Amino acid sequence: MKRFSFDRFGLYTDFYELTMAQGYFYHGLLDKEAVFDYFFRRMPCDSGYVIFAGLADLLEAVENFGYGDEELAFLAEQGFRPEFLDYLRDFRFHGRITAPREGEVVFNNEPIVSVKGSIVEVQVIETVLLNFLNFQSLIAMRASRIESVLLPGKTFADFGLRRAQGLAGLFASRAAVIGGASGTSNTMAARIYGLKPIGTMAHSWVQTFDDELEAFRKYVEIYPDNAVLLIDTYDTLRSGLPHAITVAKELEARGHRLKGVRIDSGDMAYLSREVRRKLDAAGLDYVKIIASNSLDEYIIRSLNLQNAQIDSYGVGTKLVTSYQCPALDGVYKLAVFDGKPRLKISEDIAKISLPGEKELWRIYDQNGYFYRDAVILADEDIDRIDRIYHPDYEFKYTDIRGLRKEKIRYPVMEGGRSLPVEKDPYAISEFRRERLAKLPPETKRFENPHVYKVGVSKKLFDLRKELIRQHLNP
Amino acid sequence: MKRFSFDRFGLYTDFYELTMAQGYFYHGLLDKEAVFDYFFRRMPCDSGYVIFAGLADLLEAVENFGYGDEELAFLAEQGFRPEFLDYLRDFRFHGRITAPREGEVVFNNEPIVSVKGSIVEVQVIETVLLNFLNFQSLIAMRASRIESVLLPGKTFADFGLRRAQGLAGLFASRAAVIGGASGTSNTMAARIYGLKPIGTMAHSWVQTFDDELEAFRKYVEIYPDNAVLLIDTYDTLRSGLPHAITVAKELEARGHRLKGVRIDSGDMAYLSREVRRKLDAAGLDYVKIIASNSLDEYIIRSLNLQNAQIDSYGVGTKLVTSYQCPALDGVYKLAVFDGKPRLKISEDIAKISLPGEKELWRIYDQNGYFYRDAVILADEDIDRIDRIYHPDYEFKYTDIRGLRKEKIRYPVMEGGRSLPVEKDPYAISEFRRERLAKLPPETKRFENPHVYKVGVSKKLFDLRKELIRQHLNP
Repeated sequence: MKRFSFDRFGLYTDFYELTMAQGYFYHGLLDKEAVFDYFFRRMPCDSGYVIFAGLADLLEAVENFGYGDEELAFLAEQGFRPEFLDYLRDFRFHGRITAPREGEVVFNNEPIVSVKGSIVEVQVIETVLLNFLNFQSLIAMRASRIESVLLPGKTFADFGLRRAQGLAGLFASRAAVIGGASGTSNTMAARIYGLKPIGTMAHSWVQTFDDELEAFRKYVEIYPDNAVLLIDTYDTLRSGLPHAITVAKELEARGHRLKGVRIDSGDMAYLSREVRRKLDAAGLDYVKIIASNSLDEYIIRSLNLQNAQIDSYGVGTKLVTSYQCPALDGVYKLAVFDGKPRLKISEDIAKISLPGEKELWRIYDQNGYFYRDAVILADEDIDRIDRIYHPDYEFKYTDIRGLRKEKIRYPVMEGGRSLPVEKDPYAISEFRRERLAKLPPETKRFENPHVYKVGVSKKLFDLRKELIRQHLNP
Repeated sequence: MKRFSFDRFGLYTDFYELTMAQGYFYHGLLDKEAVFDYFFRRMPCDSGYVIFAGLADLLEAVENFGYGDEELAFLAEQGFRPEFLDYLRDFRFHGRITAPREGEVVFNNEPIVSVKGSIVEVQVIETVLLNFLNFQSLIAMRASRIESVLLPGKTFADFGLRRAQGLAGLFASRAAVIGGASGTSNTMAARIYGLKPIGTMAHSWVQTFDDELEAFRKYVEIYPDNAVLLIDTYDTLRSGLPHAITVAKELEARGHRLKGVRIDSGDMAYLSREVRRKLDAAGLDYVKIIASNSLDEYIIRSLNLQNAQIDSYGVGTKLVTSYQCPALDGVYKLAVFDGKPRLKISEDIAKISLPGEKELWRIYDQNGYFYRDAVILADEDIDRIDRIYHPDYEFKYTDIRGLRKEKIRYPVMEGGRSLPVEKDPYAISEFRRERLAKLPPETKRFENPHVYKVGVSKKLFDLRKELIRQHLNP
């Protein structure tokens, strides 16, 4: 299957990156150094935070960002010139990438990732960086919000592959686990990323047998200790549940235990309470109830309020497409070129980027909660900075003296070689949990969350102001 | 890059497909024949139609649906039994797939694709079928709606890869071209699918030079006949446009022509009119105006109403994620097992599936427009059918005698081997245009489109009714 073999990522880029690269090549600008910053401007779904994800995949793609004969032949057909194609033949990314750990809590308008290297190499990886980080961070955030509404001891899993946006399903499953999913129905993602594969049974299993009871019996014959019976094919309370109870009792007699029942339609609040009550009455309090069907954090929160009796949720479409906010608007902007800080001007003052090579610090309050993020220039010492400022308004500032400060970005690639980073989605998820525990609760709520503030040093504030002045009055 | 090499698709499936397959294996049901239907229930974005897409990719995936050592080792770790794994080692899909041509106009609640074969083989390809067809059909529909609002001679291209849902970008670009895009910024998709790669320049090109005029001059030096200058980096009307005009005049003096200018921010209606006026005043009426920035069919329609002067649109996020309706709810339901028609009962009567092996016909009205779709049983002769019925209400029917009828599905795979189908997205798009020309205009409008009716034969109506009766009163 040649078609989707991502063994080389050199063409996983917007076409203009390559036409520009050829331009830099011919103008002798190949060796000029540049720094680009990755950041996003708006919080998707009005969330108070985003979970940084996608880094391990990105590093692997960047290490494999090159061109073979097939790719070069294609580019030759598009009119790229032989000398430039010769250059691309040996192309590799040799730069540095600085980023938070995956699972870190991040916010809008701060430089989350910075990429430093020659102008061509940092430019051509723009698209893959945005494509990988935007999507996985978005889904990890949604999954994390789902985790946040689970009652103690409850779990959720990703069931979304069939409605995922094509091959995006792979990333979605990984990001779902980073955000707190216990596992996934996506078998390929489970193998590639070491996720726990999870499955129950489909309606078609029940339909292939002449009656539902026989279908259940045949299933537990094969999976006596691990069966979750789907009870809504014909009628949940009048047919599916009584049959499941019969089978559970037969299993008990043979020394086994039915693992669970799944409801996939109807009123989840009412049905789950009824199913729980009848299971308990039959002495089957150990049988779990799994629910699926257009679930997300809002529906699960509502089910909790209705005292639904659900132990585990299968979450699909709404999670893997981030249905209510299907894109994170991350961008990648030039901050330094050839030693000079650069700025992207915009009609909208808030959209003007932060110039220069920068560092990102997290400031804690007296209670150990995240309080502010501070963006400072790379040559500044955070311990000598007393105040951080709103990037647009000098009169808005915060005193950060005496507060605990923590650098939240690390080099993750040097000279084009990946440095050791955590790749296991479960370990990343654990780190995410630790970090979220330090985010003030009012920043985590869904409705009008408290806006977490990102400030800049006075030196960065002044640099930006001066560059704006120069552009407007040259 | 082992990670994303899709050379075998056997694990591109929900885990329960495999646990069920093992169940069929142990119960000796491997050779029982089944038919599944693919259909969707709701029209995404309240569209009056959907464009069928994704088939060529699906057929390739199904031909490569198998298991190698790595996949089998993974399944062994998950507890699958050795005899079943031996069976999977030689597994291939040997069944038949019946489907419309890609680009066909399709509707909800009709069997768009049918898959016939042994229960295991038709079951395990469910997920990849849904994943490929749902997404590409959704995006092709959105792109087609964008095409439908373009003024004569105008074009649009896919610029979405950076905001696409990870690897979904590949499918999105293909589906965008099927829906009418002239090309794509996605270089990898362009190579894989034979799409036209399209690119202009980024703000970073302008920023890497000391001034904008120099940046433009350096660019046209390399691309004298093919340059689209991005004019909004600093100030569209006061800086970008005057510089572009200067460069265009310099190009003219050298016997070349500036191809276009691109606007990526600000008020597109106002700016494009001003840019057009000033370009024309400078004798540059041949310079095209390209616009990008959060565009979709609604915004482009609004721009038309404001007399915007835009020749080509770069459409990104809103198209490739289908932002306002990011999923098509396609499902795959058992219709026949072991020679007997099967039904999926539901609390919601409209969600009860159509049983039996079926065929799908398109009925034309007297004016040559699409009038109704008819679902009949495979053993029926459409020419002997006088009326088609609403699947739930016998008193709602349509007389189809004397009307032109056309079968819109063909075998596209037999014995697990793909039959020749059109793969070129541009040819598919042309077919789509022909088909859409036959869809009544009132079905194509965005607001409350006329609902296109899908009816069933009396025999199918009665079969469904009888099966419902049997289930409710066994």
